[in-house]
Amino acid sequence: MRTQVAIIGAGPAGLLLGQLLAKAGIDAVIVEQRSPDYILGRIRAGILESVTADALERAGVAQRLQHDGLVHHGIELSYGGERHRIDFHALIGRSVTVYGQTEVTRDLMAARQAGNAVTIYDAQDVSVHDFDTATPMVRYRKGGQQYELRCDFIAGCDGFHGVTRRSVPEPSRRIFERVYPFGWLGVLADTPPVANELIYASHERGFALCSMRSLTRSRYYVQVSADERVEDWSDQRFWDELRSRLDTSAAEALVTGASIEKSIAPLRSFVCEPMRFGNLFLAGDAAHIVPPTGAKGLNLAASDVLYLADGLIARYLRDDASELDAYSQKCLRRVWKAERFSWWMTSLLHRFPDADDFALRIQQAELDYLAGSRAAQMSLAENYVGLPY
Amino acid sequence: MRTQVAIIGAGPAGLLLGQLLAKAGIDAVIVEQRSPDYILGRIRAGILESVTADALERAGVAQRLQHDGLVHHGIELSYGGERHRIDFHALIGRSVTVYGQTEVTRDLMAARQAGNAVTIYDAQDVSVHDFDTATPMVRYRKGGQQYELRCDFIAGCDGFHGVTRRSVPEPSRRIFERVYPFGWLGVLADTPPVANELIYASHERGFALCSMRSLTRSRYYVQVSADERVEDWSDQRFWDELRSRLDTSAAEALVTGASIEKSIAPLRSFVCEPMRFGNLFLAGDAAHIVPPTGAKGLNLAASDVLYLADGLIARYLRDDASELDAYSQKCLRRVWKAERFSWWMTSLLHRFPDADDFALRIQQAELDYLAGSRAAQMSLAENYVGLPY
Repeated sequence: MRTQVAIIGAGPAGLLLGQLLAKAGIDAVIVEQRSPDYILGRIRAGILESVTADALERAGVAQRLQHDGLVHHGIELSYGGERHRIDFHALIGRSVTVYGQTEVTRDLMAARQAGNAVTIYDAQDVSVHDFDTATPMVRYRKGGQQYELRCDFIAGCDGFHGVTRRSVPEPSRRIFERVYPFGWLGVLADTPPVANELIYASHERGFALCSMRSLTRSRYYVQVSADERVEDWSDQRFWDELRSRLDTSAAEALVTGASIEKSIAPLRSFVCEPMRFGNLFLAGDAAHIVPPTGAKGLNLAASDVLYLADGLIARYLRDDASELDAYSQKCLRRVWKAERFSWWMTSLLHRFPDADDFALRIQQAELDYLAGSRAAQMSLAENYVGLPY
Repeated sequence: MRTQVAIIGAGPAGLLLGQLLAKAGIDAVIVEQRSPDYILGRIRAGILESVTADALERAGVAQRLQHDGLVHHGIELSYGGERHRIDFHALIGRSVTVYGQTEVTRDLMAARQAGNAVTIYDAQDVSVHDFDTATPMVRYRKGGQQYELRCDFIAGCDGFHGVTRRSVPEPSRRIFERVYPFGWLGVLADTPPVANELIYASHERGFALCSMRSLTRSRYYVQVSADERVEDWSDQRFWDELRSRLDTSAAEALVTGASIEKSIAPLRSFVCEPMRFGNLFLAGDAAHIVPPTGAKGLNLAASDVLYLADGLIARYLRDDASELDAYSQKCLRRVWKAERFSWWMTSLLHRFPDADDFALRIQQAELDYLAGSRAAQMSLAENYVGLPY
């Protein structure tokens, strides 16, 4: 089998890339190790920057997003028993859209299916080859048979644990990493969200986040130590812990209910440099991970994919390889700013087990400064809604 | 001997307090362990916030400052071979004044002498007593004789190494501290400054600062490791090292000359809480230290002194103790914001020996973000020129 672009991974990055390429008449095959149901069962982020919403519109999959997405003009910070609103719209005239990543994936899958593009799900033993040549190749097994997919370019959209990044010889890639000494215990529940906007709570018991997927589905998180086990957290224990970290009015307004998903995610900052190796391009989580505090993961994947799609389009339609040549540098510049912001939001709001008294006071002083400074709020806002693409 | 307020220390904090109290008709005696010449020989900061300049004007000692002070509308950040100007005036309509702390001290000494206020220099074995009672007392020796100074209040303006803070029983005070793994090697030279404004340089060899005291006197610093010895630094070696950390145009413009002072200062963040113990009030370096990166040391001392002077004036002239009761809380709120800013500027611009690759990239991303974000520049600017008093 042969295609122009072989995309590894059918998460939102791979699907979005496939859709943008299809719109431009470029042929792409997606190879995915998992099943569609498995992918749709993963609970992920839900805050879209306008860059991401625009990308989905360009891909022709923004109808449900525009209908069901909740536009948020700000967030609330809760600490010291009080809530402080960061009003993005008043500060910088911009906003974000709440729309679950699962829904983004669903929309992209439907569009891909409607376009009769080839997606190979449940591919086993996926491997990438010869990407340092003009004739890269993807190999996989399915139904007991071995397949080879020849292509011009490989797009590694297969996430942090995927095979593409690991296929690059170690001396060629440089890894930057920070593992945080805690995780997020998350609960999804079909309850109305506690507030109209997200509440980021900094509390001496640890960080908490009140988030949502829709007006009837809430997503809540509490910071837990890295060695915590999800089996030890009954719904009741989770709700009690969450409530203890919120200001009184939020704690009183909290509507609890049975969890429909409960899991612990580790927090990590990770960047692989460069993001291009010959004719292999990494995009999204395959190249970088942010802690979820700044809601940047999906959005970075979308901006990578935009750079990559435009680079491939310029290459195929205008025989201009300059954008592809600049891919890694362009992506990394935006990636590192988002890494910085995510690291900063994480540092500001979490309790670090090794923090000394000085560090705690600095954290408090920064929250205090933020609550009173329009400039500091503008800086947070412009990063949260997304720096220029 | 008896006075209303016994001030320990004749640095700028103690002298300014004495002057403000004298203007209000409140009697204060200053007790100082050193000689006037020793004090005037100390080379210190030189960037005044408008709060500080206003305080000096209120104290009636701003004539020379207004004549000789250099108004700076911005600073320059140098990194990656380029300079980026942070234009305070364009960003927030404010500025700072360059005027050496030594000159501030000289002006305050002259005013105190003109007013015939009592300053006891060269006092030995200074100790403070009974400040948890209504009749505090200061004891010292001079010329072989023992003296006792009775008072209503003691103002501890005797710096980081002074006796007042150490006289408070340990369980009553809480210390917050961060010692940085490097120092600043500083050189004072009678050469024209390399640029009109200060240059803060972040370089892979370490931080450097091009500062000045006047149009003919420069003050330069390079970050050195904590165990460096000043004897190992010839003038030539210093100038070569400084030049290597500057962008090409600054390196070429640098005018070198014989050093008239050369010393290494450690970098430390330090806060003592509270700042009031009965009738003992700590002000300035006696209560808190900042690393010099944000130029906040002298300015924090001035704002402490303003709070304290106003508190004492309300107490003596209107029999209102409420401002004195709020002294510690008011000071600390401003102190911690300045501590945060100084820690942040230090973290942003220095090389930390234990920084991993991730930390270096985050530093780079923050400089990159700062260079392109008006909000981030406004935040730096409002902190540098001084947060609201």
